[in-house]
This record gives sequence, structure tokens and C-alpha cells, in this order.
Amino acid sequence: MKIPPVKGTRDFYPQEMAVRNWIIDGWKRVSLRNGFEEYDGPIFEYLDMYRIKSGDEIVEQLFSFKDRGDRNLALRPEITPTLARMANQKINTLPLPIKWFSVPRLFRAERPQKGRLREFFQWNIDIIGIEGPLADAEVIFCALDYLRGIGLTPDDIEVRMSSRKLLASVLEKIGVAEKRLEVLYPVLDKKEKVPAGEFKQMLSQKVADGKIAEKIVEFMGIKAVSDIKNIIEPDDKVNAAIDRIVVLFDWLKRMGVVEYCQFDPGIVRGLAYYTDSVYEIYDKRGELRAIGGGGRYDDLLKQFGGPAIPATGFGMGDCVLGVMLEERGLLKPAPAELDYFIACVELEQTQQDAVKIAAELRTRGYSAEFGYKSASLSRQLKQASAKNAKKCIILGDEFKNNELVVKDMVTSKQKRIKLDAFFAELGTLSTAENAESAEK
Amino acid sequence: MKIPPVKGTRDFYPQEMAVRNWIIDGWKRVSLRNGFEEYDGPIFEYLDMYRIKSGDEIVEQLFSFKDRGDRNLALRPEITPTLARMANQKINTLPLPIKWFSVPRLFRAERPQKGRLREFFQWNIDIIGIEGPLADAEVIFCALDYLRGIGLTPDDIEVRMSSRKLLASVLEKIGVAEKRLEVLYPVLDKKEKVPAGEFKQMLSQKVADGKIAEKIVEFMGIKAVSDIKNIIEPDDKVNAAIDRIVVLFDWLKRMGVVEYCQFDPGIVRGLAYYTDSVYEIYDKRGELRAIGGGGRYDDLLKQFGGPAIPATGFGMGDCVLGVMLEERGLLKPAPAELDYFIACVELEQTQQDAVKIAAELRTRGYSAEFGYKSASLSRQLKQASAKNAKKCIILGDEFKNNELVVKDMVTSKQKRIKLDAFFAELGTLSTAENAESAEK
Repeated sequence: MKIPPVKGTRDFYPQEMAVRNWIIDGWKRVSLRNGFEEYDGPIFEYLDMYRIKSGDEIVEQLFSFKDRGDRNLALRPEITPTLARMANQKINTLPLPIKWFSVPRLFRAERPQKGRLREFFQWNIDIIGIEGPLADAEVIFCALDYLRGIGLTPDDIEVRMSSRKLLASVLEKIGVAEKRLEVLYPVLDKKEKVPAGEFKQMLSQKVADGKIAEKIVEFMGIKAVSDIKNIIEPDDKVNAAIDRIVVLFDWLKRMGVVEYCQFDPGIVRGLAYYTDSVYEIYDKRGELRAIGGGGRYDDLLKQFGGPAIPATGFGMGDCVLGVMLEERGLLKPAPAELDYFIACVELEQTQQDAVKIAAELRTRGYSAEFGYKSASLSRQLKQASAKNAKKCIILGDEFKNNELVVKDMVTSKQKRIKLDAFFAELGTLSTAENAESAEK
Repeated sequence: MKIPPVKGTRDFYPQEMAVRNWIIDGWKRVSLRNGFEEYDGPIFEYLDMYRIKSGDEIVEQLFSFKDRGDRNLALRPEITPTLARMANQKINTLPLPIKWFSVPRLFRAERPQKGRLREFFQWNIDIIGIEGPLADAEVIFCALDYLRGIGLTPDDIEVRMSSRKLLASVLEKIGVAEKRLEVLYPVLDKKEKVPAGEFKQMLSQKVADGKIAEKIVEFMGIKAVSDIKNIIEPDDKVNAAIDRIVVLFDWLKRMGVVEYCQFDPGIVRGLAYYTDSVYEIYDKRGELRAIGGGGRYDDLLKQFGGPAIPATGFGMGDCVLGVMLEERGLLKPAPAELDYFIACVELEQTQQDAVKIAAELRTRGYSAEFGYKSASLSRQLKQASAKNAKKCIILGDEFKNNELVVKDMVTSKQKRIKLDAFFAELGTLSTAENAESAEK
């Protein structure tokens, strides 16, 4: 009887865990250097919370259950509702802007496929309290700061950017009623995700007038802001939306990442709560779905019972990213290192001392390993190499005189030293605090 | 409408997140220096997995739900079953001993109280493949290496240790049938957790013979291995169990942590799967429940469909530990640091440059922040201090000549430097990999 993990979930053996940690540590490091502070919420929330504004697609994919008090709970499918809830609870005492990041574990009851699992990690960065496009630019910069740092160039990836404000004002000019927009967004979002024919059929079910549908497809296919005037005659609303897009691109240019960015009105985003800028990052080789995406959601805090405070944010999952980085040979988790491996020439004679020395080294803040089983010295030195040991302490004949042989595993140089002298030279990183400052 | 988190769960605002990270980073650092490799499993497993050997108490506390295929799933209440499942899947290729650690997020539908929540983190360290007490000692040492490192002395905490083998063999001598043991363990486990009168009543429901019950209580109250012979006449089984306890204490002595350890046959552990050593770590002031506990579970891999391979492990949650450390003033998360804060004397004139400089610093691997809103220079310097900035770059009148003022926030010394010269001097940590090696 071998028991499998639940479908759509992953077991993280040390090798896979090293990759997960490498990705998440990278996200955290880049978030911190961009001035974001880390937060997190619970794994589950009241189910109703996801009904407020996330849209039907998300609610259909919830893992839900009841607590003992018969309340409906759900595993979080995204963290933005939790963010809105948490920010609202303390909005009167938190200084604005709030710049927060999180790496929540999320859950969606989707059909598992390549780059799409039921349980995954997602990097989220959000800025709350800033109305202007500079905040959108800072969020996009932060995402690209990470992706560029791990080796992805503008030849590899592209941020496809649009604006819900632009889309709404253009659709209005084309002849779509404002109240139809919310129903239309999840369909329009499929534009770059399903074949063209399928998309047109989906669209025709929501937009009866063929001419309007055609015009929508035409608009979503343009490649430059200047092409908008070929579709409709811009009014004030359209021009205001265009102005914000231009300002956003200006900021991205100053930040040195505009070569990654492309205007693309085919980008809509599925979630209901976006109000202005929307964008998705794609692999330019184009086989995978979006690596990540985000946008502005100026009404969400208010819809969650808080004040009207603007916000903008971005999310990137670990699954599509992991597949893409693996394909390109860009997954580079650092192998674990070991400061000392302690080898016993005769296990029965020196194991007790090996254990004692290992305990002392660890207490002083150094990583150290000893062997449980008897083995030849050459085999133990191989074990030490396999564990990336920097040094190997050999307890052999010399140990009868309290002498260690310390072998440098890089240079292969050996030296003999008395046990007392070894620890006197070594010094101490004895407390957690010392160990931390020594690491820096 | 303020939406609360679900009862028994926590919101981690940046301040609470810093504490959580400080605890978890400490666990990870100590695990690594003790030679353990990190693993993790999914948040949910098939419900049946927890019925195998964890015992009724755990199963009653499960959050369970169904997937779309109507299979029963449960949020993990502990990670040992996942560990057994994962180890079994690869047992033929993994070199023994397996020394793994994990910091899983766990869930129990208990009534929330101080130090006891429905969602928590638990540090787990396990050694699979070693039969002798040295492995138990190494696990206990690792737990104490962490607790001692954060400042807890033998005056603060105590590892209370016993053995299921000893308990079973003594109970047999007292007159309890072997097949009654499994039912009895969860009751005996309450000995140190409920008032003495209540315990005796619980015990009398399972052990009808008052003399036997009295003898059990008497045995569980002894303070030294040598007192066992006052309760029963030791047979071979009892002596073998005692021998293992003595060897375990010898190892702990060599490792330098025996002063934390106390023999205590009142320790039983609630989970059904323990087979030999069992122990719990307590606050000596005694108001809280156990900080953590563990023991040997030599039959679990086999019960999960694998080979008969011995194993031993330990777990410690973040809730009781957090309460205890807070009470003692030992919670010491390091405040976030910032390399550069960029202040603009006149925001309208230099914000674009401030943003550009911040982006360049971040791209080079340095943490940097700029302000979104206009403020006086003294107010901006206060903001920089509040963010623990090491240096503040001031864009003032001098910037008309491309000159920065760089203020050291520790010494308060200022220097003027041309923008180009500043970046030429600074060098680069431009890739994630460079940034990582620079941190070391």
C-alpha cells in the first residue's frame, strides 16, 4: 500500500524543497529591497468573503467546508480579499502608503494541468493609499526586478498592459452598456487564452450585435495607444484613460524596465475587482499561461466595508514560473553547505567523541554532521563531499593524544591540532543572535 | 462592516509576521546546523490517512471536506503521517538515515485558548533508519540547541522523559493486559494535564481494579529510574527498557544538554504511534501546556505500507513557545533594515530622479525607498530613521549640478558626491546570485 498525495498537490522532498525555497527566498529578498513589508493571513476565511467581489470563476473553484459551528469556510484561492480585510481593520492607525508583500499558499479546485495545480504559492505585492500610476509602476518594477535578477531578459518575457478604464470607456463608445461590463470582463479575459474562433463564439453569446462584437475584437487587437483613434473617436473619458497609461509607461522608462512592457488591450484580467491598470506577464515563447498579473483595484477596500482608498497590486505563482525556469535552465538553488563533517576511522572507539565534538560545534553556531554507521575513511570522505562539507575532522590514531586531523575539503590540505586548541581557535557563534549577525 | 478572521486563526500584520519569521528562521537555522534537510507535504491529505495510527483524539479534531470527486480530505493536523507516506514512497532510493525537518502549517478544530489555536506552525525534526537511542538523543539535542540558543536555561525549561516500552512492561507486571494499552495511553497522557482527582476518575473508568489503578499512579509519580524496583520487580523487558533510557541519558550528557533532562514516567504522549522513548518539554513555571514533545515510532512506516524501519522525531508549535518567550522578554525579532532612503527637498522638482535612483539601487541589490508625498526634509529624515535606513540620499539644490548629499544615519556625517561617482563607487550586486553571496 503506497499512499499517494492528493491529486493536484505536491510532495516537497529536499530537492524540490530547495527549489521552492530558492524561488520564495528570491521573492522575499526582492520585496524587501523594494521597501515592502511582509504580512500573511489565515489559510481559510469565511466563504462569504470571496463572494463579495472576486467574481464567479474564483467562487466556483473554492475548496469549502464547515467548522463545528456550521459556518461556511473556504481555503483561500487568493490573498487580496484577506489583504483588504486586514488593511480595513487597522486603516486608521496604519501610515499610508501601505507597501506589503506576502507569499501565501493558495488553493483552487481546478483540473490540474501543466503549470496549474490545486495547491500553489503566490507572490503578492500591493501598495495601498496611492492614486497615481507611480504606484502601479513601482509594483511592476518590483516584479521585473525579480524576474530580471534571475536572468530573464526582454527577449524572454513581456508585460502586456492595458487599462479597465480604457476598456470601459472604449466599449461605451462602441455601444456596450456600462452595466454589461462586469459580465463581459471574464469573457474578454479569454481573448489571449483560447483560440480566436472559440473566443468569437463566447463573445457572441454575450454580445448579440455582431458589429459591436467585431469592433471589440478589433480594439483588443491593436498594438499601440495611437491606434485607438482608428477604432473610435476618443472622448474625455478615453483620453483620461490614455493619459494614465502614458504616465505609467513614462515611470517604467525612468525605472529602466520599459523594454519589458507592451501596451495590449487584449489584457482584461478575470477578477471582477480591477478598476484601472491591468497587466499580465507572459513567456514570449508563448506556450504557457501568464506567469503573473495584476492591476489597480481602487474600490475593493470600500466594498469590504472600509474607506475609499485606492490600491494596486500584483501576483505571481510558483508553478508556471517553475516550469518556465526549468525549461530555460534558470533554476539555480544553492546546494546545502556543511561546515564540518566528523569522520571516525574506528567508529566504536571514537563515536562518542565525534558526537560530543559535533554537539559542541553546533552549540557554537556551526553546522556539523557525524556518521551513525561504521564505514571506511574514504567512504566517509565521500559522504562529507556529498554533503558539501567545507572541512572534515578525522578522528584516527592521533586522537589517542587528543589530536584531530582537520582536512580542508576544497584544498585537500590537512593539519593536526589538539582538541582544546581547535576550539580555542574556532571561537563561538554561540547564540542565535550572534549566529545571525555573523551571517550578515 | 469589519470582517474578522475565522475564530482560532491569526492575522499576521508586519509586526506579528516579524515574530513568526524570527521563530521559524531560528528553527530552520538550527535544523540545518544539526544536519537536517527541509521537506514539506501538501496542506491536505486523504482523510483515511489520519485514521491509520494517529489515534482518536486527532481524528476528532480534523477539519475535513470533500473534493469534486467526493473523496474525503482533511487539513493536516500533524505532519508525521505525511512524512511516513513520503518516506515510504522513496524508501528504496533514499540513503539512510533520513534526517529531515519541516515547519508545516497545521490545523486542529479544537476550542481556541491561550497557546492553543486552530491554525499554527510546528517545527518537526525526524530521523528515520536508526534503531539506537543516539538518534533520539540527536533529535532532543537539536530541540534544546534551539531553545538554549534563544536564551532558555535549565531553570526555565525541562525535558520530561519516559519510554512507552518501560510503561508497557511495567503495566504488564502490574497486571494490565497488553491489548488494553492502546486505549489506556490517551488517558495516562492526561496525568500531568488535568488535576490529580480528575485524572484518577478518568483512570478508574478504564481500569476497574482499584489496586492496579493505584499502582499505575504510584509508578507514574516516581522521580528516578532506580525507584522502579520499589513498584514492581523488574523482569527482562523492564530492564531492557531501563537500559535504553540510561543510554539515552548518557548521550545527552555527552552532548552537554543533560541538565535540561528529567526522567518522568508521567509522560505518555497522546498519539497512538509511539513505541519507545517519549518526552515533552515544559516551562518550569508550569502554567502552560507542553512547549513540544516527541518520541520513537518504530512501527509507523510499516503501518503505512512500507518496510519495518525505525524512526524517531520531535515537534514544537509556535503558539505556546511564543506566549512563553513573550512573557520572558525573549522575543527578539530583528527590525527590518533599509540601505538607502531617498529624500526630496522639493518633491515636484526631484521625484522623478528619486524614483530613478531608487530603481537603480534596487537593481544593484540594495534596498531603497522613496517618498510618495511631499514633506519637509526633517520629516523625511524621521521617516528614514523609522525605516532603519543606514543612509539617506538627499536631493536638494545641489542636485541641479547632479550632486547628491549622502547622510550616514548612524554618524550623521554628510558628504556631497556626483551622481555618476556615487554609482561608480557603489559597485553592483546586480543579480540574485550576487546578492546572495554578498549576504554571506
